[in-house]
Amino acid sequence: METKTITKFSAEFFGTLVLVLMGCGSAVIAGANGTSGVGLLGISFAFGLSVVAMAYAIGHISGCHINPAISIGMVVAGRMKMSEAFIYIIAQILGAIAGAAILFIIASGKDGYSLSSNGLGQNGFGASSPQGYNMLAGFIAETIFTFIFLLVIFGSTSTKNIHGGFAGLSIGLSLVLIHIVGIPVTGVSVNPARSIGPALLVGGAAISQLWLFILAPILGSILSAVFWRYLLERE
Amino acid sequence: METKTITKFSAEFFGTLVLVLMGCGSAVIAGANGTSGVGLLGISFAFGLSVVAMAYAIGHISGCHINPAISIGMVVAGRMKMSEAFIYIIAQILGAIAGAAILFIIASGKDGYSLSSNGLGQNGFGASSPQGYNMLAGFIAETIFTFIFLLVIFGSTSTKNIHGGFAGLSIGLSLVLIHIVGIPVTGVSVNPARSIGPALLVGGAAISQLWLFILAPILGSILSAVFWRYLLERE
Amino acid sequence: METKTITKFSAEFFGTLVLVLMGCGSAVIAGANGTSGVGLLGISFAFGLSVVAMAYAIGHISGCHINPAISIGMVVAGRMKMSEAFIYIIAQILGAIAGAAILFIIASGKDGYSLSSNGLGQNGFGASSPQGYNMLAGFIAETIFTFIFLLVIFGSTSTKNIHGGFAGLSIGLSLVLIHIVGIPVTGVSVNPARSIGPALLVGGAAISQLWLFILAPILGSILSAVFWRYLLERE
Amino acid sequence: METKTITKFSAEFFGTLVLVLMGCGSAVIAGANGTSGVGLLGISFAFGLSVVAMAYAIGHISGCHINPAISIGMVVAGRMKMSEAFIYIIAQILGAIAGAAILFIIASGKDGYSLSSNGLGQNGFGASSPQGYNMLAGFIAETIFTFIFLLVIFGSTSTKNIHGGFAGLSIGLSLVLIHIVGIPVTGVSVNPARSIGPALLVGGAAISQLWLFILAPILGSILSAVFWRYLLERE
Repeated sequence: METKTITKFSAEFFGTLVLVLMGCGSAVIAGANGTSGVGLLGISFAFGLSVVAMAYAIGHISGCHINPAISIGMVVAGRMKMSEAFIYIIAQILGAIAGAAILFIIASGKDGYSLSSNGLGQNGFGASSPQGYNMLAGFIAETIFTFIFLLVIFGSTSTKNIHGGFAGLSIGLSLVLIHIVGIPVTGVSVNPARSIGPALLVGGAAISQLWLFILAPILGSILSAVFWRYLLERE
Repeated sequence: METKTITKFSAEFFGTLVLVLMGCGSAVIAGANGTSGVGLLGISFAFGLSVVAMAYAIGHISGCHINPAISIGMVVAGRMKMSEAFIYIIAQILGAIAGAAILFIIASGKDGYSLSSNGLGQNGFGASSPQGYNMLAGFIAETIFTFIFLLVIFGSTSTKNIHGGFAGLSIGLSLVLIHIVGIPVTGVSVNPARSIGPALLVGGAAISQLWLFILAPILGSILSAVFWRYLLERE
Repeated sequence: METKTITKFSAEFFGTLVLVLMGCGSAVIAGANGTSGVGLLGISFAFGLSVVAMAYAIGHISGCHINPAISIGMVVAGRMKMSEAFIYIIAQILGAIAGAAILFIIASGKDGYSLSSNGLGQNGFGASSPQGYNMLAGFIAETIFTFIFLLVIFGSTSTKNIHGGFAGLSIGLSLVLIHIVGIPVTGVSVNPARSIGPALLVGGAAISQLWLFILAPILGSILSAVFWRYLLERE
Repeated sequence: METKTITKFSAEFFGTLVLVLMGCGSAVIAGANGTSGVGLLGISFAFGLSVVAMAYAIGHISGCHINPAISIGMVVAGRMKMSEAFIYIIAQILGAIAGAAILFIIASGKDGYSLSSNGLGQNGFGASSPQGYNMLAGFIAETIFTFIFLLVIFGSTSTKNIHGGFAGLSIGLSLVLIHIVGIPVTGVSVNPARSIGPALLVGGAAISQLWLFILAPILGSILSAVFWRYLLERE
């Protein structure tokens, strides 16, 4: 690989590592209870602020996708070559696995932690949904949330948008928003890499349900790219 | 319709859909209890961050009103033609209905959800107020909150304001603020479309009380436009 | 008064009205309990986001002081004439009274609200401190918090600071910060007008303790202006 | 010392004072319980917003390090002379001690406060960890969190990053993020000065465990500077 590719690969790897370590870490370490832990609102901020932090840290290096659904959406929207997206996605998945592994090591430093009972912030539906939402609701939610997320990305980073400096904030804060609404449904993925990382370590239902958190975000991303390219920015 | 009109119509439709789906969705799915859910603060952030996200996503396309009170205020302030405002308002109301419908579909994916007992985040006063505030308090609150909201919009987007890039943040964060204060009174509307969408699906008191959430925001918006145009920015 | 003075007076009046109505309103209407209400964190955001919203709405008109301690600090720092500060302070105090009055009207729309038991978010120390902090702690806290607040204002708006557009955010978020820490001590004033408004309506201890919430913020403001002018920006 | 050095020294002293007084103050005064206090999320915002506030207040004076790990990282990254870093670190440690002392004075204004039972927000691991995380978990967490924090700083302030104005926000919000995840582990240091200040006043385990909160942040900072300089920004 040439230098620029190594640099981008490193940025995407590290950025996704941070997203999974800190996002999922907020749920595993700090907890979803709003009295004793950071609550659902705190977890929502953890995922979204990971994106804000990384956007301004590595955005000028790789564009800070840290999410295969974004890289695929960028290909469909005509903003990225498929060959480059492929390298990005490899980096993202490896980074997500590394992030989940580091989280496991830190979480294990507390007596009583176990992978099977405490998990690593993996996503799920049906019996694995945080509040018992069925598969259909999970699929619709993940598709629509990714659609919205990608549209914020397309609009905030459009060359027609003169306030491009705010993209890191608006994209990260839209991920806060999506988590505020969606954690009870699936724990919120909208990002196949974010689901793959924890699932590979946790196993079980997280693996057998992984297909939804790969398919639905990619579907939402493709629909968003088409909606953006052929309707909102066609002129 | 010409291309530009279709584009603006689509942007306003989609933006209002997001506001209702995510704002009301935070209340219906994630819950107003601060220990087990996202709490009133989380719901407040959901409404406000919907505006932040949409402002930077579609602001350069349609101005991101996603609220009939804003479009009407813009007409009174002399910044928009009434014929265009009419098209905007149609798009906003249809988007709000679509957002409420999608929310209903996702919420129905959990056993025990019912439209009559869980609702769709509809607004109300008196017996339908979240904490029993009467009609007069609801009317005054909605009028004044819309007055404040519109003034933030007029000031942040004024051509005399050299920090126009921050408008999306300041307007969205002012909606967070209004919800932090006002949810116990009416659930906060300040936006007729946001009230119409859920009300049409929920029916009952949400319909019979809808007049207040149309009249008060429009009144606050007109007063704000007059105050802005003839006092604060008259020179 | 000439046109420009009327405009600035109106902006300062309205801005302080919003700060008191929404800041104190979050405590009175939405409540300090983090499970059923917005909690101390929500109240902190209400005060700070009031400043963010107003800074971008009226900052280009009057500078958005909405606080006599800021106007006095600006005089000491050599950035404002005393005659203009006097007009600003009148507007701020009248706006704070109007904000408290509107809050009283809305709050009264709920059965069981009473001025004597629920109050209007007034400040206090000793027996009137939210968590029993004595007068000395209250005086020190108010002085130091105002010192810090003013320093953020001087630095963020300095002509040597090339990121002046962010001043509204950094100043507002620093007020969020001060409330996160200080609500248990005095309810946080750092702003004589914000204390005078509710006190005039509530009476009793809020009036007899008002001197501290006038003296300490002014002292902190003067010390901060001197520290800024003669040490940090002397070169 | 020449004028410019005194100015920078004063800025770093005051900035670190604010970070310790307000960050640790949020835990000691406002409390980690999310129902009656500001909760873990509120404490997280207090630390991060201290950095946001100070970044825009004194960033143009000293760069707003207010953290020895940052000054050391800047030396390793080739952006600062070691002789200047030495002066910065002295100012930071003295400021942190002053901040802890002021916090002690204010906290003592409430009946029942005692240094031994309530502390000053000091960091700890093992028996002193907020939720019983062992030394290894604490060391790994502090090292990795500082690594991430420094990378946000290097990237946000890089001359290749055209959105440098957002650095204060992204750096401060990344500190919010790190606290959301890490408070249960060690209380979060990532800053030797922030740990030294409270420890010197509290004594006991806070002193005997201080080595970890000096070593781990410095290690994370050096690794981050090397990763940044020789991989991400080598081209």
